[in-house]
Amino acid sequence: MDFFEAVNARYSHKQRFLPEPVPRAHLEKIARAGLAAPTGSNSQSVELVILDDRTVLREVCEVTSTDGLRSTPAAIAVMTDRCTQSGPLNFEKEDYSAAVENMLLAATALGYASVWLDSILYDQETAARVRATLGAPEGMTMWAILPIGKPSGEETRRKKKPFEDRLSYNRYGARD
Amino acid sequence: MDFFEAVNARYSHKQRFLPEPVPRAHLEKIARAGLAAPTGSNSQSVELVILDDRTVLREVCEVTSTDGLRSTPAAIAVMTDRCTQSGPLNFEKEDYSAAVENMLLAATALGYASVWLDSILYDQETAARVRATLGAPEGMTMWAILPIGKPSGEETRRKKKPFEDRLSYNRYGARD
Repeated sequence: MDFFEAVNARYSHKQRFLPEPVPRAHLEKIARAGLAAPTGSNSQSVELVILDDRTVLREVCEVTSTDGLRSTPAAIAVMTDRCTQSGPLNFEKEDYSAAVENMLLAATALGYASVWLDSILYDQETAARVRATLGAPEGMTMWAILPIGKPSGEETRRKKKPFEDRLSYNRYGARD
Repeated sequence: MDFFEAVNARYSHKQRFLPEPVPRAHLEKIARAGLAAPTGSNSQSVELVILDDRTVLREVCEVTSTDGLRSTPAAIAVMTDRCTQSGPLNFEKEDYSAAVENMLLAATALGYASVWLDSILYDQETAARVRATLGAPEGMTMWAILPIGKPSGEETRRKKKPFEDRLSYNRYGARD
């Protein structure tokens, strides 16, 4: 799919997914796109766990859940390794966010729907429990889970402000 | 350009740019891709300023500068509006990062080079001075500047860890 077409087709799928499995090759292609995103100081802090085993997905849902997560045939968990950060600056949040955006677009380009689930992990205790469920060490920061599958139901998009209201030219507020 | 081709072609251009101007239509297409990125709770916190006026670019370089910023014919400054954040969670950093990643890929898809310049703005005083130079109010957080242009010199990429070392399956560390 053309890059700009993927950007415009992407939306946050907050409903259920169809049970149809997602081939490993597609999940790996999506993960590879995520890991190709830039990272601060080339730390490559981001690590991913592909989830396509029903037992593991069910265990994650026992800790934290949404309609999408309960019905999805597959997901990708997104973490960063704190040990990769050196010096006074920490880019873990930028790193993981860029990787997520690449994966949301990659899933769209391959005909799947997804959504950036991070609010459910903002509670540190919940995030630690999901991390432990996946067997990741304490040095890993658990940020988000992306369910990936064929969408069930209608595509719903929320209203956006006009493009022109968010763009200026050379000085803030100058509209041309 | 195909989505996956853009992902693989993107790199962080840390050298100089050629003086050749970037058409407004291309800068707007890149900005539009940035503003199409998801934002936490659909806050649409991200706002952009296209910079293609030599005087303004020079003023920015007087505050903070890199080889790329001094030579680039155009750039996009990336801010978020703190007033869009409600509740206990703040997604400004995720929002701006997803928008930046879309714009880096969009610039690549249109044949330009770019780089995510944010370290130079981590110093709060510098960020405030750039914000003031562009005439943005104090409620705006100044995060990054993306120079955009045709690259001068060779494309240089830093070494990446093997993909397999950053990906697990169902349990952290499981390699299949």
